[in-house]
Amino acid sequence: MFRPQIKVLDCTIRDGGLANDSHFTLDTVRAVYRACCEAGIDYVELGYRNSKEMFSPDEFGPWRFCDEEDLRRATDGIENPGTKIAVMQDAHKASAEDLLEKKDSVVHTVRVATYVKDIDKAIAIENAARAKGYETTINVMSISTEPDFDLDPALEQIREETGIVACYVVDSFGALYSEQVDFFVEKYKRILGEGIEVGGHFHNNQQLAFANTVEGIIKGANFLDGTIYGLGRAAGNCPTELLLGFLKNPKFDIRPILDCVVRTIMPLQKEIEWGYMIPYMITGILNQHPRAAMAMLKSAGRDDYRTFYDKMLELVE
Amino acid sequence: MFRPQIKVLDCTIRDGGLANDSHFTLDTVRAVYRACCEAGIDYVELGYRNSKEMFSPDEFGPWRFCDEEDLRRATDGIENPGTKIAVMQDAHKASAEDLLEKKDSVVHTVRVATYVKDIDKAIAIENAARAKGYETTINVMSISTEPDFDLDPALEQIREETGIVACYVVDSFGALYSEQVDFFVEKYKRILGEGIEVGGHFHNNQQLAFANTVEGIIKGANFLDGTIYGLGRAAGNCPTELLLGFLKNPKFDIRPILDCVVRTIMPLQKEIEWGYMIPYMITGILNQHPRAAMAMLKSAGRDDYRTFYDKMLELVE
Repeated sequence: MFRPQIKVLDCTIRDGGLANDSHFTLDTVRAVYRACCEAGIDYVELGYRNSKEMFSPDEFGPWRFCDEEDLRRATDGIENPGTKIAVMQDAHKASAEDLLEKKDSVVHTVRVATYVKDIDKAIAIENAARAKGYETTINVMSISTEPDFDLDPALEQIREETGIVACYVVDSFGALYSEQVDFFVEKYKRILGEGIEVGGHFHNNQQLAFANTVEGIIKGANFLDGTIYGLGRAAGNCPTELLLGFLKNPKFDIRPILDCVVRTIMPLQKEIEWGYMIPYMITGILNQHPRAAMAMLKSAGRDDYRTFYDKMLELVE
Repeated sequence: MFRPQIKVLDCTIRDGGLANDSHFTLDTVRAVYRACCEAGIDYVELGYRNSKEMFSPDEFGPWRFCDEEDLRRATDGIENPGTKIAVMQDAHKASAEDLLEKKDSVVHTVRVATYVKDIDKAIAIENAARAKGYETTINVMSISTEPDFDLDPALEQIREETGIVACYVVDSFGALYSEQVDFFVEKYKRILGEGIEVGGHFHNNQQLAFANTVEGIIKGANFLDGTIYGLGRAAGNCPTELLLGFLKNPKFDIRPILDCVVRTIMPLQKEIEWGYMIPYMITGILNQHPRAAMAMLKSAGRDDYRTFYDKMLELVE
């Protein structure tokens, strides 16, 4: 009935941090961490470990950097029967020098996010993180715009030059339909071969984040990202609660996530706007970064969908 | 690139009417009708033609009955280059006697909604409607709870005793995952045979309404329901705008639907609550009618998801 290899990673704080410059309160981070531990989720990603030279600590909150003392404040005293802590490093905005030795850190897994063009930087960070003792993954962003002649050799290089446990299909634009998910998961499996799991991280511009995650599972992806109530930049992510509702592994308990939705995540709707909205749908169907939609939604013309659609169409035609 | 057999039916007013007892203003119905005509949508369903003995006209709005004069008021003066008008009749709450002869009506298609147990009533209505000159379909509701030994003979009976153009898989509870959509669409095709198209009508309890519609398309379903911005009872429906964004047929124009979202449908959010909410998700994953979730959301305990989950779980375990 269930596939024991499947691992769920909740990245509510990390991906949600793109919507509020990582300015979550300590209480929020502790509540999310506690819910994930109680729910039996395999991994919880508490933010980025990005460079303070690339991001100003005056502007960005602590979860853009995940200093070790902040991670300890977020996790101390909360019973953890096995949920592993992850942080993300952006290949072009982070340095492995910011990682302590694994034995001195609460972090278990470093996920390196990269565009195909930065694959050498990503591999360098992955190698250094692994040398310090961390489990590693590589998350290939904006995959819906990467031609095969760039993506395939990048995946070959990942296979040859890293020791990652998983490589993720990342649908940054929320543009993929199920048949394209099939295409990418099958390509990853074929090129990466045995020993590297395929992961899936999908955005919800077209209300397909959860469906694409299930499609990934059907095709063999075993590392799956979700965020509680779909919290995330723009249209948001695959809701963790839907993923747990689908998976049959009795180790998962959806109840702590339901509590967290109502007590911790829904109150954030006062400050953060995320979810299905027509401008994000438009960038999704046109396979574009959501930034134009985010800007449009902050403008006086935020209701003029037709003009926005026509303008975006000009960009792609 | 596109399959010309695919027909899109917008049932915003009909399915949305389950959320407001069919109390749409004439302006709203005209705006939806106009948008569908301008968008090139194949069918627009303007409500139920149900019995005034089963539903009190004091309690329910005009779109529960779709009197001919109301349909004419809703459509007069709006240019229609080919969008067909449909109404729905509930097999157990309607009578074919309420249908005029087709030549005296603006209605083109009568869709008969039925539970498997009411299949004889549905067939009687379908036969009578067809005798009056209408195109007909049968929409089999709550299919996620129908065992094969009931559903299969019902489909055989439909094949033998009707002249419908399409028979719909209706996921009333928003419970189906993609592999189950495959199962039902393939079963319908196998039993119904040539000459009857398979249709799909999916609810969004698990954010799968659009994904399941696409899955239906992949498996060969050609009659597809949507509602603008997903408006509908409880979690709502497959958003028509997403469906048009996916389909490649150049006859469709998404722009009038985008206008209708912002001008006509979003303002309804002040009166009608629909969309993804945790209680609807819970009834979806447990394959239950959303009525318990609807009642819970009207109660003082509308935020206590955990208690609701535990209570629903008791029902199914």
